[in-house]
Order: sequence, then structure tokens, then C-alpha cells
Amino acid sequence: MLTSTPNKKDIESAHERILSFIHQTPVLTSELLNQKVGCELHFKCENFQKVGAFKYRGATNAVLQLSAEELKQGVATHSSGNHGQALAKAAKIANSKAYIVMPNNAPKVKIEAVKGYGAEVIFCEPTLEARETTLQKVIDQAGAVFIHPYNNYDVIAGQATCAKELINQADGLQIILAPVGGGGLLSGTLLSAHYFAPNIEVWAGEPENVNDALLSLKRGEIVEAPITPTIADGLKTSLGDKTFPIIQEHIYGILTVTEEEIVNAMKLIWQYLKIIVEPSCVVPLAAIIKNPVLFHDKKVGVILTGGNVDLEKLPF
Amino acid sequence: MLTSTPNKKDIESAHERILSFIHQTPVLTSELLNQKVGCELHFKCENFQKVGAFKYRGATNAVLQLSAEELKQGVATHSSGNHGQALAKAAKIANSKAYIVMPNNAPKVKIEAVKGYGAEVIFCEPTLEARETTLQKVIDQAGAVFIHPYNNYDVIAGQATCAKELINQADGLQIILAPVGGGGLLSGTLLSAHYFAPNIEVWAGEPENVNDALLSLKRGEIVEAPITPTIADGLKTSLGDKTFPIIQEHIYGILTVTEEEIVNAMKLIWQYLKIIVEPSCVVPLAAIIKNPVLFHDKKVGVILTGGNVDLEKLPF
Repeated sequence: MLTSTPNKKDIESAHERILSFIHQTPVLTSELLNQKVGCELHFKCENFQKVGAFKYRGATNAVLQLSAEELKQGVATHSSGNHGQALAKAAKIANSKAYIVMPNNAPKVKIEAVKGYGAEVIFCEPTLEARETTLQKVIDQAGAVFIHPYNNYDVIAGQATCAKELINQADGLQIILAPVGGGGLLSGTLLSAHYFAPNIEVWAGEPENVNDALLSLKRGEIVEAPITPTIADGLKTSLGDKTFPIIQEHIYGILTVTEEEIVNAMKLIWQYLKIIVEPSCVVPLAAIIKNPVLFHDKKVGVILTGGNVDLEKLPF
Repeated sequence: MLTSTPNKKDIESAHERILSFIHQTPVLTSELLNQKVGCELHFKCENFQKVGAFKYRGATNAVLQLSAEELKQGVATHSSGNHGQALAKAAKIANSKAYIVMPNNAPKVKIEAVKGYGAEVIFCEPTLEARETTLQKVIDQAGAVFIHPYNNYDVIAGQATCAKELINQADGLQIILAPVGGGGLLSGTLLSAHYFAPNIEVWAGEPENVNDALLSLKRGEIVEAPITPTIADGLKTSLGDKTFPIIQEHIYGILTVTEEEIVNAMKLIWQYLKIIVEPSCVVPLAAIIKNPVLFHDKKVGVILTGGNVDLEKLPF
């Protein structure tokens, strides 16, 4: 297991390690959407990843490095969403067991999915405190290994493989955008751009309602995410002490967008690309549309992080 | 232009002719959906085709065979949907002009799309009679060439290229299913299976509410489609005298499904494949789920015909 920021070799090894378990997701484009937005967009479709989200990369990379003894005890995490599913499936392919602590108000579709992968779901009150106490109890009782959703170097190395693939699939990218929540995907993206295509500018998109990453950058220290609601519910988490320094060192900038801008961008992707993506991952497109001058005529990669949406609660 | 049922060479020529203009759409699979349904499903994603539907294949093949003189006069058709968009775009790439007659109650999203491709939209009352009178007027005035949505051998040859690709992309298919409306896609699919993989059984799916193709087969003559409403609005048309004989000769069977079964199948595809597809093209999956014994453990290709959905009018 990695004990410091992944280097180039670490990311290459992570990719080799997980390659036969993940989908190498396609990169989609739309001429009409390009015309509308004014730049050349290349969408890396992690909504087509196993479990429907990029999180499967990081979870798989972390689980595949556990010892036989550790696998026997199982793995545990707290997650209201995709990381829970990802760890559940990663545990399954490694013949291990996953314990997933979920808030009792988590979307039904995500609870069912986690159970579907054979994991044990332990419910807790939807507070940070209840989540951590419950998780600690599970770890103490089962002896399971805690795999953090993002503040974990092996998880970061796994998420980095997504941008690594994108860089290979779309030649000559000038910019890559990813959304930022806890910073696992963003820090992985920054590292892959840094090692494999150092001329690429990496920007992040963040909801205005939960703009803690932007504030953290400005203040030079981690600012806790506010408990403001946002439709981009995957981005409500705060940065971690492993992700923040990577972001500080390499990020080009963070752009924030309103809830309305997020819904509009989501609709554009559904209409033009004919794919289902979560609100969290359209934040970068919303940021591009809001700041046309920054991206005009550029060749831009956008990571679409996932597609797990409750179809009965659509915003349109 | 073809004057009889396309032969093997005609379909190969059509494919060569349109290849640089169309997307060779991907074939998607979902392990979880396979487990749920009990067979191995390979979805040919024409929702990712240009204009969002397979219709672009047939329209392009027909337009690319017109003479310079004909192209100068333009092309015309009646269509409440995808064929209109397809012909509009096909005319555009051939530097011709398209006149599209549409009912005044057509979905806004489809009207806008047709106009977006630079075609002239002529509205008529939503009746068969008004549609034909209006179209005739357009043809007489502009001297445009009528490209029928499905009852046209060049259109059929173009649609056949979709199953031809699918057969190459998914090795060893035992069954292919397509929806049936006017029969353009279905007859093309039947011809491609017949010429390129004669062991494949081709089945069609049809809404119970508009089961005229099934009745036509039973009676041995074309039965007009009833005006019953169905959510699968692309399948409300009757068979034509060019499509019906091909279907009669080669079809394995037609399976009908209820409106509720269509909505359920649509939800499954959205959830498991994370792609946006029209109600019309989930009819075959609904038929598979309704008849598990017929398809159990088989390797099945399903043509997903299009993804042009009004996101503000979803059935869930």
C-alpha cells in the first residue's frame, strides 16, 4: 500500500493491476454540442464503468493490494453512494467481504445496488458523527480494513488511471476538467496530467453551494464543506489531507456553478450525447459554458464520473 | 436507385457508400442486465447514430444516389420524427435542400432538430390525408424527390447496414431482435441476417396497442395500423408493399408487449446501460423479458433504434 503521493510508476502499476477488472470506458463527442459550446469536447464516460462510476477504479486498486489475511477479515467504508458500490464489487472479485456504512436517507437505488454486490449494509443516522462511530464499531467488531473513499493514496492512484486513459484516447488535449468533492478523482487527474501530459491544464468544477475546495485553495488550508444542499450530491464532501496538497500543487483553477447551471448542463449531455450521467459530473460542463473565453476553440477533456441516477427523481 | 429487394451486393454497396458519413455505433453489454434477463444481450446503439437514430443510414443511402439535377431540386418527406431529421441532415451533407412535412402536434424537440439541420418544415394537420396532400403540394411546387421513410429499397438497404455491423461486432449471435413499425429497419435486418449470417433467427417486437404487423403476417396481407395510442410512437405506422414481402419471407416471429412492459424495459436500459433510448426501441427487450423460454441462455442482438426523447415528458 502506498504511503505517499503516487508517482508515475505507481499509477502505471495501478493501471496494470486493475486493467482486467475495469472497463476501458469510451470517449464520446458530439459535433452539435461542440458547436453550441464553442470548443471541442471529449467526454470520458465513467458512467459506463462497472458499478456505474469511476470509483470502481480506486476501490479495486486498493483491495487488490490487501494480503490474504486482510481479505479474510473484509473491507469497510462509509459511503452514501458510488464508493460503497465500488468497494462492494471490488471485495466480491477478491473473494472478500465488504461492510458498507450508509446513512439511512441514502437513495434507494444505491442501497439496493450495494446489497446486490453481496455487501453487508449497516445503516446510521445521516450525520458525520454517527457515520464515523458506526464505521469504527464495524472495524472493531469485524476486524475489517477501512478503505477511505478518497483520502487514500491507492484510491487516488486508481482514480488517476481514468485521466491516463483519456490522455491516450483523445490525442492533443489542451485542458482536462473534473469535478471536485473529496478530491480523489481530481488529485488523480492532476497527477496523471502532470506525469503523462504535462502541458495539459487541469481545472475543476465545483457547486457554488458547496465551494469548500475553492475556499481551501484561497485560504491555503482545508475548509470544511458546508451542509448546504446541492443536486450534485457526490460533491458534498471536504478535501482530505492527502488530496489537498496534490490539488494545491497542480491545479490550474476551480470554477463554481449554480444549481440551475448544473441542471442545464445535465440536460445538454442527456440530449446531445444520449447518455445518463449524474448531476455531480456535469459540473465541469456547466463551468465551461459559464466561462466561454477560457475554453474557446480548445480541445477539452471532461471526465463524466458516473451514471447512478434515481430515475424517479429527475430535475426535469 | 434500387427497383427490387436489395441483394447482398446492394447492402455491401450501401454500406461502403455511407460509411464515411455515419457513426459505426458501439455494441454495449451489461453483466447485471444479462443476469436479470437470463440471456446474453448485445445492444447495437443507434441512439448514438448521427441525428440520434438509425434512420440516418437509410436516408443517407437514398440521398447519395440522387443525380446532381435531382439534388438541385431537393428532397421531401413526411415524418413526425427521426426520418425527418435524418433526411434533413442527409440533404445537408449532399448540398441539397430538404422539405419536411410534419404534423403540427409533433414533439417540439424533433421540430427544432429538423430545423437545426437547415431543412424547411411544412406543418399539416395530424391526419394521414393532410400529410399526403401537403407532401404532394411540396413535391409539385418544389420539384423535390420524395424519399419515403421506409417503403423504399434504398432506404431498406441503408437500414440493413445496421444489422450487418452488429453481426460483425458481436460474434456468434443466435438471435437478433428489432422493433417493427413501417418495417424499414426490420426488413433490412432480415436481409442482412439472411445474407451475412443465415443461422440467426430474427424476431420483431411490436406494441400490443398497434399490432398491425402481427395481424398482417397472420392474414397474409397488409393490415392498416390502428390509431390506438402507444408510448412507442415510432411504431405507429403500417407496413409497406416493399417491406411486407421481405418480412413475410424471412421473419421468425413477432412478439407483442403492453405499454407497461415497454415502460419497464425502458427503465431497465436507462438504469443498467446508462444510455438514453426511445420507448420505441425497448419493445424487443420487453418481448425478451416476457418470453424468457425463447431466449434463455442465448446470445441475442438487440437493435436500439434511437435516443430522441423529450426529457420533459418521461414516463417515470
